[in-house]
Amino acid sequence: MTVEDGNTGVDVLSSLKVGMSESYSQTITDADIKSFSGVSGDKNPVHMSDEYAGKSRFKKRIAHGLMLSSYFSAIFGTKLPGPGCVYVSQSLKFTRPVYIGDTVTATVVIKSINFETRRIFFDTVCAVKGHAVIKGGAEIYLP
Amino acid sequence: MTVEDGNTGVDVLSSLKVGMSESYSQTITDADIKSFSGVSGDKNPVHMSDEYAGKSRFKKRIAHGLMLSSYFSAIFGTKLPGPGCVYVSQSLKFTRPVYIGDTVTATVVIKSINFETRRIFFDTVCAVKGHAVIKGGAEIYLP
Repeated sequence: MTVEDGNTGVDVLSSLKVGMSESYSQTITDADIKSFSGVSGDKNPVHMSDEYAGKSRFKKRIAHGLMLSSYFSAIFGTKLPGPGCVYVSQSLKFTRPVYIGDTVTATVVIKSINFETRRIFFDTVCAVKGHAVIKGGAEIYLP
Repeated sequence: MTVEDGNTGVDVLSSLKVGMSESYSQTITDADIKSFSGVSGDKNPVHMSDEYAGKSRFKKRIAHGLMLSSYFSAIFGTKLPGPGCVYVSQSLKFTRPVYIGDTVTATVVIKSINFETRRIFFDTVCAVKGHAVIKGGAEIYLP
């Protein structure tokens, strides 16, 4: 079964090119952090408690790195390459803290494509005000 | 500032040894998937729609890989090494699909410790019925 464009019936893979990219931006709020804490179970007080975080090296509560990383998953699953794609791997390096009120932009860029194995390799970056907060790469399989 | 045990005031790092591990198990339900879809924005129909997933290679709706990965974050932030630790990096390879009703066990094992730089390196695995569904590794910094 090949992933086809819903409108044209054309194999999505054939429309992809190195350098294509998609982004998603979201302002991080307390609601995001509390929701992710519930889903993940990660109630590390650096995310949950103003008092604890205030005494930490971060001085303020920070967002969960894997919450921000999940925006890559959203881009892959809904935009590029889109519905039906299969997540093969993801690497993540958390380079800076993200605070409540920060607007995070997640961007994925096609680095290379193997048309025989139908694998797409992406650079994946989350940034705040132009500074990378997460760097990494992903491999996607398009059935 | 050093992360100390809340009860003893002892530096947590000095109590860690290679081979130490912690696990967390959760049965995956529709509620988990819908919650994670909301937080991440990943509404790929392989997660959301029985009809779409039924026609896919998976035959049934599957869980988001990054949702399962978030259980590693929860173990790090709450159990081993525990509150105050800093997530430096995580690699993830998604090796098998996880379905609604599957009980996933996330396990982190200390592979090595650098006491000078205060970095802890972990093997991280999620498994269902003894079969790995996610494999990877993580680096944690203990301030």
